[in-house]
Amino acid sequence: MEKKITFRIATEQDLDKIVKMLADDTLGSKRERYEQPLPESYLKAFQAITSDPNNELVVACQDNEVIGVLQITFTPYITHQGRWRATIEGVRTSSSERGKGVGTELIRWAIQRARERDCHLVQLTTDKKRNDALRFYEQLGFKATHEGMKMKL
Amino acid sequence: MEKKITFRIATEQDLDKIVKMLADDTLGSKRERYEQPLPESYLKAFQAITSDPNNELVVACQDNEVIGVLQITFTPYITHQGRWRATIEGVRTSSSERGKGVGTELIRWAIQRARERDCHLVQLTTDKKRNDALRFYEQLGFKATHEGMKMKL
Repeated sequence: MEKKITFRIATEQDLDKIVKMLADDTLGSKRERYEQPLPESYLKAFQAITSDPNNELVVACQDNEVIGVLQITFTPYITHQGRWRATIEGVRTSSSERGKGVGTELIRWAIQRARERDCHLVQLTTDKKRNDALRFYEQLGFKATHEGMKMKL
Repeated sequence: MEKKITFRIATEQDLDKIVKMLADDTLGSKRERYEQPLPESYLKAFQAITSDPNNELVVACQDNEVIGVLQITFTPYITHQGRWRATIEGVRTSSSERGKGVGTELIRWAIQRARERDCHLVQLTTDKKRNDALRFYEQLGFKATHEGMKMKL
């Protein structure tokens, strides 16, 4: 029998595992600092996210263990007749669980959450170096209609 | 002598001109509704944006006339060691002013604003159908490192 995956808003107790997952990744390993105690910048960001009603840090759990994470930001825009959109960022699943459909369920949960928040669009950007990610998101119904442009400050 | 362009947070009195600019565009004409009175959805979005400390609707002005607009969203993320990033969206200049560098000054202003808000990254997505936009943003220092994926709900 498949074990059921549940989704909930992350708590401070989840932060260690979240950072561990973000760091355990080809690109993430170069930019995160997973160490004990966690750098304070992570806790500050966590507090900023959880105190903002337009940001949700969501974890996927199985047997009370966190096995996936993503962040959704809900933004009101003047464009498209003043409709809201949802932006998904920081999607990661536990390396031991990859390839088992956790990511798919996590994104589907986020899409449903965007509908509940009356968004007309869900969007995300994926690094062109992540070869499999484009197809993964296309299979979920996303279309790569835009260039995702970044500038480091 | 070149007329000086100034930048400020949009007020409700600017909303009519903002929607007019958004609608006066190849893609915007298909999705906006510029009419009198303005559809209420625009006003509701304006109020949601201006009441959110992490969203700023910015206008460029010349001789007290609004000639450009964009929206900046500041978002705290766990990724990149918990740093903030700025997302630019809904960039438009008045059709009579295009090609005069207003867009360039507007984006530069937004980049400076992102620095003031301690963001480590500025990002935006641009529709692949906008042929000139990619080069415009690349000249400003953005890199098209990501796919910008969208899903309509």
